[in-house]
Amino acid sequence: MSLQNPVFIPGPTNMPEALRRACDLPTIDHRSSVFPELLNAARQGVQTVLSSTVAEVFIFPSTGTGGWETAIANTLSPGDKVLAARNGMFSHKWIDMCQRFGLDVQVIGVEWGEGLPVATFEEVLREDVDHQIKAVLATHNETATGVRSDIAGVRTALDASGHPALLFVDGVSSIGSMPFEFDAWGVDVAVTGSQKGFMLPAGLGIAAFSAKALAAVETASLPRTFFDVRDMAKGYEAGGYPYTPSVGLLNGLNEACKMLLDEGMDNVFARHTRIAEGVRAAIGAWGMSLCARRPELYSDTVSAICTPEGFDAGRIVSHAENAYGVSFGAGLGDVAGKVFRIGHLGSLTDVMALSGIATAEMAMVDLGLDVQLGSGVAAAQSVYRQSAAPLAMAAE
Amino acid sequence: MSLQNPVFIPGPTNMPEALRRACDLPTIDHRSSVFPELLNAARQGVQTVLSSTVAEVFIFPSTGTGGWETAIANTLSPGDKVLAARNGMFSHKWIDMCQRFGLDVQVIGVEWGEGLPVATFEEVLREDVDHQIKAVLATHNETATGVRSDIAGVRTALDASGHPALLFVDGVSSIGSMPFEFDAWGVDVAVTGSQKGFMLPAGLGIAAFSAKALAAVETASLPRTFFDVRDMAKGYEAGGYPYTPSVGLLNGLNEACKMLLDEGMDNVFARHTRIAEGVRAAIGAWGMSLCARRPELYSDTVSAICTPEGFDAGRIVSHAENAYGVSFGAGLGDVAGKVFRIGHLGSLTDVMALSGIATAEMAMVDLGLDVQLGSGVAAAQSVYRQSAAPLAMAAE
Amino acid sequence: MSLQNPVFIPGPTNMPEALRRACDLPTIDHRSSVFPELLNAARQGVQTVLSSTVAEVFIFPSTGTGGWETAIANTLSPGDKVLAARNGMFSHKWIDMCQRFGLDVQVIGVEWGEGLPVATFEEVLREDVDHQIKAVLATHNETATGVRSDIAGVRTALDASGHPALLFVDGVSSIGSMPFEFDAWGVDVAVTGSQKGFMLPAGLGIAAFSAKALAAVETASLPRTFFDVRDMAKGYEAGGYPYTPSVGLLNGLNEACKMLLDEGMDNVFARHTRIAEGVRAAIGAWGMSLCARRPELYSDTVSAICTPEGFDAGRIVSHAENAYGVSFGAGLGDVAGKVFRIGHLGSLTDVMALSGIATAEMAMVDLGLDVQLGSGVAAAQSVYRQSAAPLAMAAE
Amino acid sequence: MSLQNPVFIPGPTNMPEALRRACDLPTIDHRSSVFPELLNAARQGVQTVLSSTVAEVFIFPSTGTGGWETAIANTLSPGDKVLAARNGMFSHKWIDMCQRFGLDVQVIGVEWGEGLPVATFEEVLREDVDHQIKAVLATHNETATGVRSDIAGVRTALDASGHPALLFVDGVSSIGSMPFEFDAWGVDVAVTGSQKGFMLPAGLGIAAFSAKALAAVETASLPRTFFDVRDMAKGYEAGGYPYTPSVGLLNGLNEACKMLLDEGMDNVFARHTRIAEGVRAAIGAWGMSLCARRPELYSDTVSAICTPEGFDAGRIVSHAENAYGVSFGAGLGDVAGKVFRIGHLGSLTDVMALSGIATAEMAMVDLGLDVQLGSGVAAAQSVYRQSAAPLAMAAE
Repeated sequence: MSLQNPVFIPGPTNMPEALRRACDLPTIDHRSSVFPELLNAARQGVQTVLSSTVAEVFIFPSTGTGGWETAIANTLSPGDKVLAARNGMFSHKWIDMCQRFGLDVQVIGVEWGEGLPVATFEEVLREDVDHQIKAVLATHNETATGVRSDIAGVRTALDASGHPALLFVDGVSSIGSMPFEFDAWGVDVAVTGSQKGFMLPAGLGIAAFSAKALAAVETASLPRTFFDVRDMAKGYEAGGYPYTPSVGLLNGLNEACKMLLDEGMDNVFARHTRIAEGVRAAIGAWGMSLCARRPELYSDTVSAICTPEGFDAGRIVSHAENAYGVSFGAGLGDVAGKVFRIGHLGSLTDVMALSGIATAEMAMVDLGLDVQLGSGVAAAQSVYRQSAAPLAMAAE
Repeated sequence: MSLQNPVFIPGPTNMPEALRRACDLPTIDHRSSVFPELLNAARQGVQTVLSSTVAEVFIFPSTGTGGWETAIANTLSPGDKVLAARNGMFSHKWIDMCQRFGLDVQVIGVEWGEGLPVATFEEVLREDVDHQIKAVLATHNETATGVRSDIAGVRTALDASGHPALLFVDGVSSIGSMPFEFDAWGVDVAVTGSQKGFMLPAGLGIAAFSAKALAAVETASLPRTFFDVRDMAKGYEAGGYPYTPSVGLLNGLNEACKMLLDEGMDNVFARHTRIAEGVRAAIGAWGMSLCARRPELYSDTVSAICTPEGFDAGRIVSHAENAYGVSFGAGLGDVAGKVFRIGHLGSLTDVMALSGIATAEMAMVDLGLDVQLGSGVAAAQSVYRQSAAPLAMAAE
Repeated sequence: MSLQNPVFIPGPTNMPEALRRACDLPTIDHRSSVFPELLNAARQGVQTVLSSTVAEVFIFPSTGTGGWETAIANTLSPGDKVLAARNGMFSHKWIDMCQRFGLDVQVIGVEWGEGLPVATFEEVLREDVDHQIKAVLATHNETATGVRSDIAGVRTALDASGHPALLFVDGVSSIGSMPFEFDAWGVDVAVTGSQKGFMLPAGLGIAAFSAKALAAVETASLPRTFFDVRDMAKGYEAGGYPYTPSVGLLNGLNEACKMLLDEGMDNVFARHTRIAEGVRAAIGAWGMSLCARRPELYSDTVSAICTPEGFDAGRIVSHAENAYGVSFGAGLGDVAGKVFRIGHLGSLTDVMALSGIATAEMAMVDLGLDVQLGSGVAAAQSVYRQSAAPLAMAAE
Repeated sequence: MSLQNPVFIPGPTNMPEALRRACDLPTIDHRSSVFPELLNAARQGVQTVLSSTVAEVFIFPSTGTGGWETAIANTLSPGDKVLAARNGMFSHKWIDMCQRFGLDVQVIGVEWGEGLPVATFEEVLREDVDHQIKAVLATHNETATGVRSDIAGVRTALDASGHPALLFVDGVSSIGSMPFEFDAWGVDVAVTGSQKGFMLPAGLGIAAFSAKALAAVETASLPRTFFDVRDMAKGYEAGGYPYTPSVGLLNGLNEACKMLLDEGMDNVFARHTRIAEGVRAAIGAWGMSLCARRPELYSDTVSAICTPEGFDAGRIVSHAENAYGVSFGAGLGDVAGKVFRIGHLGSLTDVMALSGIATAEMAMVDLGLDVQLGSGVAAAQSVYRQSAAPLAMAAE
């Protein structure tokens, strides 16, 4: 019966029933006129969610990893230099992909728990006077550490240094849940997937390109076929797709955008902030701290919680799964065993969040950690009470 | 988004996804050979859940109320005397139905919060030396007050007084969730519905008859057509149904019985007890008391919680719905405004129960009640921790 | 794999996926504000489908049979005289129910295959000068014989004879599929279910009352509790229901009405007529005849097809099921073994109808009947071709 | 309402409801122990469907096109020579992909409608004495022309010439529907997708590798990251996945394999043959011919039908869609406008096939082609009657 509990992993997220249904379509002929309508609506919806009026949105039957490959394979050439910082597992993996593609990655090492080093980026860019650096890779929200970085700052660093490098942003665990400003931040390629803020099953890799990124496609010589945005663009123009599309997921994406935009992106962001603040209040009440170093780095989609020295944080995850049927995220890479993660993005209510907090509490007490039952819940309740709809006293 | 929270009403209950799917069948010809197979399996399953090897199970496209009517219209004649006690809204309604059918109901008034008056029943039955009383009506679990009565005791009263009256038991909010012994208790008609312990949508009225009750059908002269068990029996014998059956719901009922029996009825009952004890621990931590007067009356499927004098308990229900998107049960009849109810039956996990407790807590604090945030949750967590699967320390 | 074929029984009908989903709701608190909204919308929708602005629509967790009981139990008293004709299995069953309720039914025997005897009705009503007859029962569409009767004619008979009897119409297999004029025909109680023209699972009995019928409720003394429209009305007024409603089915009914009204009732009726004409053309091509005696009696929802003398028509039904996985309707009662039935109502396309015709053809040839493969299909194709959307030549 | 008609495109195919449900899972933590179980079961199932005990099955969130890329990018190096024949749109596209990857493709031109030129392949391979050719690409079933080629023959050509080239087979529209012998044919990489014989939504690219192909992975230098089978293999070994998997689709794939293996692959193949023969009988009755030149080339999954000179075959497809709500496949590439295609693979019954044939017939007559209504249906009925389950005369 445990399947009925919500999950608290940082994606795939809990799915609203309406979106599961939108994905579960009977077979539709993707060469009929129905298909381009829903495809274009989904692409338009994603553009709006990205706060953009110009982004060219490409959607692949793939994942966020495919989105990373789409970004680099379409815009760069073997040996091209790119700038990136490693501040968690996912920035690490994107860097690794670049290296395997034969790119020359200048990696800035950053402590896990820190954000992207905007000042260092600016320094490096200023020093690159002959503009060898073709692209800057920026992980907006490090899912492994629960750290949100300052993408506007990276744009400022580029502008301040007068550097023409492309700005690639991994927004896999931020887009649709935390403010993301494709146009205002001058993003050149934004990458995401279907299974986080869009509250859908995994299966779509999404890459949004600026005009500048599209121009780079023409000269880029890295090999690509499946992820070639030119084939994709040609398909879209002809009202179709270069191969068989995931019609159901695309329909789900369209409905997900409608659902987000109906709620209002500001309300969506505020909801994520409120729920995250409840979780953080609980963590404080437990006497524990976040992996993220400072409040301005706190992610509103995932919290990585440091456990005491000598305690294997992974035990909380496996015990919560086994004893209570609730999934949390384990620590990855450098912070494996040191943190456990509570995902709080996507389709989540305050009430659901409280059940996750209560479960984490039980699991920690079970495992001998010095945590007071009910303490985190009470702290979160205080947050949720203050921010819930004002009491309709008059009506009662 | 509130639809994703579990409900905490005392039925209809939360439905496991597998059962929703079992109900959602494509159109199946109910005159084909598929139908009698699933019908008979469902009837057999219900018999087993009732702890019976003899009950003849009739299933109507209807509700528990239709089950009440099935019990009396098939076995009694106009003017027949029946004995019943009024200890809550649902016993009251069944009595009312009897009176509208022209039966002569001897009603024992009982304070709401008390159980059925077994001793008084025995007294009345002893005094009825010429056996005018044809049936005793017994509400196993009063959903309005959260009171479980002693059906074995009622059987003992009948036996001790050597009285041949039929024993009719309303098990709508007990069957499938709390021990129910059709054979051992000598029940003659047991009534229930699909939407409680069976975790299905409403839409089925279920009435199980003993051989003695079936014998009474032959002489009973109350009018019945839709609810005539003779038509139903004739349909079953012919591998069909007297009219168009709810094939999907019957399939769901079959699957629900399998699900309960796979878990094991003892485990199902233990789960309900554990979850109920957590809820009761929370209520104690809030400094509040149950409508049910004594521990042996406590229901494991619903708790009716008394709120302080002068406070309208209905406000908790409406505020929880409006502010947090969580449904509780309001007080009904004599206890309207005096209690609110937490339903904790059907498809529920400890984790889900904690979210309900946390929500009730917030709602009560919002409304100015003297309740400590987190206090009920902590009390319930203590219960759930102790009873959850023992920590697999070795493996970790 | 046979489940994927459409069914061709005269109900339950094939269900559009959108309606299955509308029925498959998660648990919704039926005491919350969501419920009365969907209930009232469904009641309003049914009223519109009935072509009425005055009908008071009552919806029971039940079936059409429950609707029959609702009609008579709420308006009549023991010993009341009612007038009815027996021209098929379903009119027969309704008469039987009346007799079991202690009503005095004046039954006009009619050959199966004929419609209601309007002239005889008028004669009988004229002779009933002291208005002993309290109600006339009229089966609009005899599902057993595929005969549609003239309800407007029955109304005329009542009016011409100046008789005040109530007019009860069984519209189970006509409402939502063939024109039904509650107001224009002066219907007093119209009865239907969810599983025919509304394209839903079985589980709802629907009874619509005129003001005159509602007035009769006050004086009627037949016993009723579950089907008491006064309890139902009281529930509706309070924004609820007298017992636990089938929330999902009610939501489905609301969506079904929207679907029908969006298509437009005239278009719905025209679609049923077109598909029925194709089926009838096929029957003609097979050299067979309908049970219905004359074209003006032909039903647009079900065709009962006479098979040659000495041939057991039931073999077609069982062979089609076993060999091809397709369900047809068998003959019932007086025409058992003499006819088989093709249901062509509800959610059906011309293309689906052709597959049913093709299957019937194969089954008949398999069983040695003198039928030409493809002949019925060709005849139906000719009908469907002429009536399909005109060929968009210009665009091509 | 047209969505309720089956589709007759050569994939995505009609989906059994059980498989749609298997795909529509609630969120499951892909790092929990549930995931590797279903992943391994799906991989094992695919291996069995491939008639292999050795194939290493890799499954990507992708499509068949991604499978093509997986085959070549993992096993070849820039400039490597490969041998292929172009006999339809899909062989053409795979060749194009190779060229874009910088491979040196020796293309044998073949008339569309012909199979792979086994003799020419053998000749070329014999001439390639220093084994410059690293791989032979073979499209088992050309979806564009409805031509099935002789893969065993290609293997024989390789063996006869003593050539060590890898054998890559595109089985996208054959695997799971027509005999495919991974081991017996010595296939090195077999490619398919989820949306054809597996009767699932699009979204999975499947590539099965022989030990020899896996050995080639070690030395191949074409760039790959998303499609790198080494990452995938490493993920599998660790009980996981290199990125976020499509859990629902993988579960669906597992269920699809079970469904196929429960039916028995021989029965599945026989069913496809029977349905295809009915379609071909219809085509013959229409006086038309297949694009496939000879019976031994006839595909059992798709028929491409030549329309008369001067007639635009695409009109049949668009008219059937617009007037009857039925999807057929249009001609692609060299045969665009010259053929239309009937897909007859996946979840299809004889009865469904008849409705497709009947619709094609109506559409052709509407458009003025010299076709007799009912003629194709009758021809197909004759096929289906003979091959349906023998008439159970005794029982009747």
